[in-house]
Amino acid sequence: MANQPLVRKHSGDFHWEGVDVLAYKQEGSAPFKDVTRQVLFDSAEPAAQLRYFEVAAGGHTTLERHEHVHSVMVIRGRGQCLVGDQAYELGANDLVAVPPMTWHQFRAAPDSPLGFLCLVAAQRDRPQLPAAGEIEAIIRPLKKIGV
Amino acid sequence: MANQPLVRKHSGDFHWEGVDVLAYKQEGSAPFKDVTRQVLFDSAEPAAQLRYFEVAAGGHTTLERHEHVHSVMVIRGRGQCLVGDQAYELGANDLVAVPPMTWHQFRAAPDSPLGFLCLVAAQRDRPQLPAAGEIEAIIRPLKKIGV
Repeated sequence: MANQPLVRKHSGDFHWEGVDVLAYKQEGSAPFKDVTRQVLFDSAEPAAQLRYFEVAAGGHTTLERHEHVHSVMVIRGRGQCLVGDQAYELGANDLVAVPPMTWHQFRAAPDSPLGFLCLVAAQRDRPQLPAAGEIEAIIRPLKKIGV
Repeated sequence: MANQPLVRKHSGDFHWEGVDVLAYKQEGSAPFKDVTRQVLFDSAEPAAQLRYFEVAAGGHTTLERHEHVHSVMVIRGRGQCLVGDQAYELGANDLVAVPPMTWHQFRAAPDSPLGFLCLVAAQRDRPQLPAAGEIEAIIRPLKKIGV
């Protein structure tokens, strides 16, 4: 990213010149469905990355937790998130903070994508996945809001 | 911001629950016109701040430079920016990188606000302003695109 152009025009549909649309994670490495990833800024200073994630309609990110925090702004579509023991409906421009070691998951609505910016530290710990027996209790708040 | 709620709903018109709309800078401290500032995330880790700035129609930010870098995404309206020796038209979802010690300014269109997210290091140097005799040469690229 060292030689990135200073201004990168939005080329429509949440794509940008010179920004690759990446797989969210390596297929098979963790459970997820229909998610892409774009690294928008990756600067040495501040030691942070701003990424754009897009979850396709009906898709979801991995249910996971880690020491590093996420700072999120929804910029496209609708969906829900789980953060700790609560689930929330999400729409354009809503903000989400994911504290350390807090189970979290982002889900697109059945009929809409969910696109969001996510700010993280460039150096960060690897996510932990729940044990199979833990999942049902962790995602219970999502079921309460009818996801 | 330590006790901020995990999810802050967009309450319309680019305002968020519990987020104060601040003056851009102290009045009289530097030249600017019609700009507000909102600190969306201010986390100890990563050592970065994500702010939302909104320049009213016809307004502009200070023409300045500094060692710290800016990473910007436009999320509302239209305008222009100057970065170094080039000016650019800006619209929704365009990305702008401002390198160290590079003169820059954001200007809203005459008939539209310009709202953008700006990621910076939490610890950063103070901006430098141009000398009066330097301004004309610095802003020449903006005049070329008819601002």
